[in-house]
Amino acid sequence: MESDLIAWLRERLPPHESLRLGIGDDAAVVQIGAGTACVVTVDVVSDQVDFHLDRTDPRRVGHKALAASLSDLAAMASRPRSAVVALALPRRGGLELAKQLYEGMIPLAERYGFGIAGGDTHSWDAPLLISVTAIGDVTGRGPLVRGGGQPGDQILVTGTLGGSILGKHLDFEPRVREALLLHERYDLHAAIDLSDGLAIDLARVADESGCGAVIQLASVPISEAAASLASAKQNGRSALDHALGDGEDFELLLAVPPHAARQMLADQPLEVPLTRIGELIGQPGLWQMLPDGQRRELGRAGFEHTFLP
Amino acid sequence: MESDLIAWLRERLPPHESLRLGIGDDAAVVQIGAGTACVVTVDVVSDQVDFHLDRTDPRRVGHKALAASLSDLAAMASRPRSAVVALALPRRGGLELAKQLYEGMIPLAERYGFGIAGGDTHSWDAPLLISVTAIGDVTGRGPLVRGGGQPGDQILVTGTLGGSILGKHLDFEPRVREALLLHERYDLHAAIDLSDGLAIDLARVADESGCGAVIQLASVPISEAAASLASAKQNGRSALDHALGDGEDFELLLAVPPHAARQMLADQPLEVPLTRIGELIGQPGLWQMLPDGQRRELGRAGFEHTFLP
Repeated sequence: MESDLIAWLRERLPPHESLRLGIGDDAAVVQIGAGTACVVTVDVVSDQVDFHLDRTDPRRVGHKALAASLSDLAAMASRPRSAVVALALPRRGGLELAKQLYEGMIPLAERYGFGIAGGDTHSWDAPLLISVTAIGDVTGRGPLVRGGGQPGDQILVTGTLGGSILGKHLDFEPRVREALLLHERYDLHAAIDLSDGLAIDLARVADESGCGAVIQLASVPISEAAASLASAKQNGRSALDHALGDGEDFELLLAVPPHAARQMLADQPLEVPLTRIGELIGQPGLWQMLPDGQRRELGRAGFEHTFLP
Repeated sequence: MESDLIAWLRERLPPHESLRLGIGDDAAVVQIGAGTACVVTVDVVSDQVDFHLDRTDPRRVGHKALAASLSDLAAMASRPRSAVVALALPRRGGLELAKQLYEGMIPLAERYGFGIAGGDTHSWDAPLLISVTAIGDVTGRGPLVRGGGQPGDQILVTGTLGGSILGKHLDFEPRVREALLLHERYDLHAAIDLSDGLAIDLARVADESGCGAVIQLASVPISEAAASLASAKQNGRSALDHALGDGEDFELLLAVPPHAARQMLADQPLEVPLTRIGELIGQPGLWQMLPDGQRRELGRAGFEHTFLP
């Protein structure tokens, strides 16, 4: 549904000079005053959809709510400056809950050096919902967008993927520092944060860049959590399925020209691994590279079930 | 509850150089880049709390959600630049509902010349909730805050007050243009938008300014809706009760030095009336001016019931 709405909004929302980048990226770029621009993003998480409050420390929930917005800023290589927080709290115990949520957010603000500017607090007879708007600077090299990729760009990802449901979806560290470091040091073409799953999010970068993409499945960095889900659950999904299809890894996916990719892979400048998993190509669609060098098209929906290596 | 949380947040949130004005005003002032600042505010409205979706055109709901945030910008005399919209939609009919909500917002963006930068859309098994973050410029004279008032400042309000439940709470026009015009043309000390009721919101300006306030009840501009509620409902609340106590007027309340107030009242530069209703005083508390020139203290809670003239 969200993609239908985005298509409609792109058609219907009036263009405005202050919107340097609007609907459809990880965040918007908005001009403030005469010449300065900022990056703005909002992210909603709610009880029973993104976490289960009855069995989760509210501090972890607060962390997740803020970190998800910071991850969007990271995808744009934007330095966080401020966050505003809207809380819709169940009436019973709302004040105590609100404090615990903020206690989960404060360490992130301290770690990444920005201010929480407060926000709006709303009590109602419905589940907890948190909407965090994060605002960041545009750094010297400008915002990193989804649509900047070109055929031949190498696809790199940070960290390992899959199985975030075992805990990382709550406790992940947004790749703010990693994005700023890479954007400053290397020539990056495009980026996205992996929130909906590798296959879907890679397809977004490819689409927005007017390209297709081919993945080498054997190269996808699989997390221990993905492996452990695959061995424990016996549901027919392999660890690779989890790495390709699971949401909420909150790692970065980057499209990088070959010379920069070689340098990045040689340098390994982050505390987490950088892995090459494929490349952008001129031919539209998502493709799997077969061992014989041929490509096989991958459907986007149900990707993880249909395309085992 | 919200005031308890604000007190706690003021204590606990780490200060940050980028936050020129944080918790507790109508909006925050955030520094972006090297020198530019912007005004940021978020406002949440939800079904059954702020409107009844089963008997309200979603376009009016969309209008209200965005206009409430614009009203916060107006209270800071900030020019809107952008809005980001977070929607939590009931699963059934969510896409159509989202379009109608945006259709209610788009005319405001066109009228006030800013961009809607999209946002996040969330589906869930709970009532509709809308969180709008609005971002505005700081105009040449800087942001107008709640705490800038001084003893002797005259209290002026725009428009007429009370009874917004009859329709204005959905269809109000945020006082964006009025605030910008007044802030540019006159020497204003403090402002707030009347969202929770005249008595409560005036007390906030007085408190933040380290003052008290005295009201001449006979001067309070009473709306036709307030009069009609008083005559129809027979619930013991007078039209003045409604004007003092009803929320969601979304008019401006201003604290203005006497010379500027005289000029503003003589000029009447707005399409809506500007009315003097009292003044800030050194003595803390909210006071009623009696016909004999004495003051009687007004409690803040239950104000509208206790203090009929």
